[in-house]
Amino acid sequence: MSPEVARLGHVALETPDLDASLEFFRDAAGLEITERTGDTVYLRAVDEWDHHSMSLTEAEEPGIDHVGWQTAEPEHVGEYAEQFETQGLDVTWVDDDAEPGQGEAIRFDVPEGHRFELYGEMEKPDPPAERDSKLKNRVYDPSGDNPIAPNRIDHLQIWDPDGLGCAEWLQENLGFQVQEFWDDADGERWGTFLSACEVKIDLAVVQSTTETDDPAVHHVAYDVTSANDLFAAHDVMNELGFPTDGIGQHAISRGEFCYTRDPVSGHRIEFNTGSYLTLDPHWEPVAWQEGDLKDRQWIGAIESTERVRY
Amino acid sequence: MSPEVARLGHVALETPDLDASLEFFRDAAGLEITERTGDTVYLRAVDEWDHHSMSLTEAEEPGIDHVGWQTAEPEHVGEYAEQFETQGLDVTWVDDDAEPGQGEAIRFDVPEGHRFELYGEMEKPDPPAERDSKLKNRVYDPSGDNPIAPNRIDHLQIWDPDGLGCAEWLQENLGFQVQEFWDDADGERWGTFLSACEVKIDLAVVQSTTETDDPAVHHVAYDVTSANDLFAAHDVMNELGFPTDGIGQHAISRGEFCYTRDPVSGHRIEFNTGSYLTLDPHWEPVAWQEGDLKDRQWIGAIESTERVRY
Amino acid sequence: MSPEVARLGHVALETPDLDASLEFFRDAAGLEITERTGDTVYLRAVDEWDHHSMSLTEAEEPGIDHVGWQTAEPEHVGEYAEQFETQGLDVTWVDDDAEPGQGEAIRFDVPEGHRFELYGEMEKPDPPAERDSKLKNRVYDPSGDNPIAPNRIDHLQIWDPDGLGCAEWLQENLGFQVQEFWDDADGERWGTFLSACEVKIDLAVVQSTTETDDPAVHHVAYDVTSANDLFAAHDVMNELGFPTDGIGQHAISRGEFCYTRDPVSGHRIEFNTGSYLTLDPHWEPVAWQEGDLKDRQWIGAIESTERVRY
Amino acid sequence: MSPEVARLGHVALETPDLDASLEFFRDAAGLEITERTGDTVYLRAVDEWDHHSMSLTEAEEPGIDHVGWQTAEPEHVGEYAEQFETQGLDVTWVDDDAEPGQGEAIRFDVPEGHRFELYGEMEKPDPPAERDSKLKNRVYDPSGDNPIAPNRIDHLQIWDPDGLGCAEWLQENLGFQVQEFWDDADGERWGTFLSACEVKIDLAVVQSTTETDDPAVHHVAYDVTSANDLFAAHDVMNELGFPTDGIGQHAISRGEFCYTRDPVSGHRIEFNTGSYLTLDPHWEPVAWQEGDLKDRQWIGAIESTERVRY
Repeated sequence: MSPEVARLGHVALETPDLDASLEFFRDAAGLEITERTGDTVYLRAVDEWDHHSMSLTEAEEPGIDHVGWQTAEPEHVGEYAEQFETQGLDVTWVDDDAEPGQGEAIRFDVPEGHRFELYGEMEKPDPPAERDSKLKNRVYDPSGDNPIAPNRIDHLQIWDPDGLGCAEWLQENLGFQVQEFWDDADGERWGTFLSACEVKIDLAVVQSTTETDDPAVHHVAYDVTSANDLFAAHDVMNELGFPTDGIGQHAISRGEFCYTRDPVSGHRIEFNTGSYLTLDPHWEPVAWQEGDLKDRQWIGAIESTERVRY
Repeated sequence: MSPEVARLGHVALETPDLDASLEFFRDAAGLEITERTGDTVYLRAVDEWDHHSMSLTEAEEPGIDHVGWQTAEPEHVGEYAEQFETQGLDVTWVDDDAEPGQGEAIRFDVPEGHRFELYGEMEKPDPPAERDSKLKNRVYDPSGDNPIAPNRIDHLQIWDPDGLGCAEWLQENLGFQVQEFWDDADGERWGTFLSACEVKIDLAVVQSTTETDDPAVHHVAYDVTSANDLFAAHDVMNELGFPTDGIGQHAISRGEFCYTRDPVSGHRIEFNTGSYLTLDPHWEPVAWQEGDLKDRQWIGAIESTERVRY
Repeated sequence: MSPEVARLGHVALETPDLDASLEFFRDAAGLEITERTGDTVYLRAVDEWDHHSMSLTEAEEPGIDHVGWQTAEPEHVGEYAEQFETQGLDVTWVDDDAEPGQGEAIRFDVPEGHRFELYGEMEKPDPPAERDSKLKNRVYDPSGDNPIAPNRIDHLQIWDPDGLGCAEWLQENLGFQVQEFWDDADGERWGTFLSACEVKIDLAVVQSTTETDDPAVHHVAYDVTSANDLFAAHDVMNELGFPTDGIGQHAISRGEFCYTRDPVSGHRIEFNTGSYLTLDPHWEPVAWQEGDLKDRQWIGAIESTERVRY
Repeated sequence: MSPEVARLGHVALETPDLDASLEFFRDAAGLEITERTGDTVYLRAVDEWDHHSMSLTEAEEPGIDHVGWQTAEPEHVGEYAEQFETQGLDVTWVDDDAEPGQGEAIRFDVPEGHRFELYGEMEKPDPPAERDSKLKNRVYDPSGDNPIAPNRIDHLQIWDPDGLGCAEWLQENLGFQVQEFWDDADGERWGTFLSACEVKIDLAVVQSTTETDDPAVHHVAYDVTSANDLFAAHDVMNELGFPTDGIGQHAISRGEFCYTRDPVSGHRIEFNTGSYLTLDPHWEPVAWQEGDLKDRQWIGAIESTERVRY
């Protein structure tokens, strides 16, 4: 049996001002801190049991350190390492708990340069006693102090100078499957929307607009429960003075969204809801072409193209 | 021009343990404290400009001190006083600011014993600077620390040994209009749903089940924005260990509801949403009779009959 | 006692293709037809008892015939007529039932040219038996065949070459009260948001951008229940191929919106929700100035400035 | 590699009056008919691509013919057949298209008597052209004529005289995993909540109350988008005169629900929303015991115990 990726785990982000970024990610967006070690803070959403779905590290420049994915079994990490080394990729091992809460892991660069991490095990720390939910199937008490508090990390959008090549590499080497894709009028791939967990989009790979564009992350999406929560998120971000890019719905994924951005680091969060599950074991990728409901691509919002490099 | 009542203003409640009741009304239900004087705390909802829509006073027994209504003009208070004294009612004057934030007022008993207060003016204190909303048409910043935070007081349900007589007195003497009413199979009035503000139900007068029942308040309702908020309120109350009486929808008023109760004082809050506005200047009361969609009277909830006496 | 306007009643719209416009207003937006006489169709929303809140008349050009307002009492119509004639206005009487369902009325032009109608009485026709709701306080059965089906007419936005003058005229002559207003950096009035019913905004008067602009209607707003309904409306309009202008929230009124347009007549509907009630008998107008949360004026949408002339 | 079940596919229900049951399932609940052959009608939900998630067959008595599950690969059907025959189970082959739209399948009885079907392939018929959504990732146009229209089949609750034994058989033989379970004060298993698709509950196996109870289906659940939809479903069922069992939230699964029933066949539908995904590859079953938030087990509703036998 070949190794498998089970799901998107976390994003490791860098910011020039850790405390200022926490005002955005914790105080406004409502992520919960599980641990703080040196210049890194580990956060998770209120419906996540695992140690972190995001880390923030103070650094000279905003950046992405890596994107973490959990394998289906712990031993798959070593199997992937072997596979990538055979291909000539540069694989770095990360010791058990070197990244707090996380088992042994490997890091490597997906062409054209997205730094991925594969790990098999992650601790599930209890929330502070006063925040522990009485419901045994819920992590944090919802009577807590944040009005947004998304449920869990949902997906990531990355930009790549060779988007199609990147997506194909992920299909062949990590077993990602294509949920949807979008081609322009010339038949050139603009975006490929991939699943690692097999039931929803976990990663969107978008063709960057200039060939010299570095690989970059456009946004990290966190799931919220309903369209009402998108308006609530927008309200809170406005009140706290954080920039937003509007509320709307994508045709691709059918996801309803509200985008917002940490002004200090430039990292963008999408609060999203309203998409579908692909429980079909033989899902046929949804093929969009330029002209198909083009005006629905980005409804009710001005597209914002700033993104953060690795 | 005859004096007019403009709207339901506030309820003055008594509790045997003020601090314990604040855990319910402030920490759980999300009302905001505007002032604390001696053994009384004044609260308002996040979308209310006026000084208070509820007061809580420590007393030996749970109880209702009075129900406050604002007149259309300050001078109407005196006009009502004169009218009631002519009728032989016992009218008590309350000095300007004797009830903090409130102008000169009168108190009197509506037959069969509901203590009402009429006042014309109420201060509009600013929220604390850190809670002040950037939106000029909103009072409190929604990024505050409570997950329920209803918008404003909506209505009151009182029980009376002569419900029909009480409702008629309010129509004749305070100009309340009937929005809806419900008669049992024998043609006996069970409930009359009255409006003071003319556009929605402000007061439900329900026939108490035994003739010796004291006049009592069954619940105070606060408006929330959507049905999702009813589930959120239910969740929070469960987490914090406060009793609830279920989620559902009334046929009368079409109001969707979640009931919950302060275990210390027994005072009950209804979070409600989903009703309609009667903008029609000649609204014809909706006449319900036993048998009309009877099963919709109290959907999805076990009726709870405990209530608090004056 | 001086005459009073009780509420916004209806808009009488003109379209070059009545049947095509019905595909938008009835089949897509979900208004219900109550009567069809000659080249005019009368419509109302599912939570309206009165005969119509909109009429559509086939005409050579798209246009607005008039905006109808209901007076508090039928005899106020004549009192207003007298008042306007004294001022030298040209008042036209409309016979009882000349506009189907409507009692005797007058029409006149508000400076600078908005044609208003005042009437005191309107019939309340039963819905077709198969659409009659079992709930006595609801008009139409919600199991009907339209996925949008807004509740009731909410407000109107008109553009005027002398917006401030128009608003002041309405205050002085029709007793409208100011809920909110917005001034630009030079202190020039951009918009005045008026109430006829006293509890919510019924009419927005906006300064048109060029002095030669004819008086025009920018949009008619219909109330929906929650933010989810805005996404549902957007979805349906996209599916049926009708143009939309996005989903978002206004700072003024706090209204959450989805705009859409009948491509044949150019008439625009706003589905809106989320605003507040002004139950305060002494509401102080909310004064906005350029720079106050300017970016919230039109959230998540590209402003669309096309509008229809009288 | 051992064979795998990929997901819950459909329920084959029997009713004494097919047309009357269609008034419930199609006209009220909003399922769509894909095919009618003889005395059987095949239905699916608006967000389902496969041929059917429910069939209704006219029969002398209400009943369940079988519950259909899709295998991960078509060849798994034969592998399961071999496995069950080795165990001495009675396996019946169903020809390709004998059940319309479906590939070759097997049927067999899960102890103590639940008739299951395993199939590998199902046709994906286009909706009628006028109902086809313009969105390439959506099946039916949402502007259709039903106000409920749930998204997709979600789960099934069955009752068994040996609930724990039944659940263990499904784990061992079909690879179902346990998401949650609930034991009474004596440590006796009341319910086991299983997943076939690995990310959500697909099947609840509940201990029937008397040992002589036949195996039965308590309800079939269909997913809706938000809590608002639960109130909308309740409204429509009330209007159309179909019985409901209230609105509320379960502690187990955290699912928010509205139950309703076809009065002709007794089959019950749960509209549900609000649960969570178990993307964790090593999900630890949530272990409930009597006394854990017991009052949340069935919130805001009177438990209804009628169910239908095979």
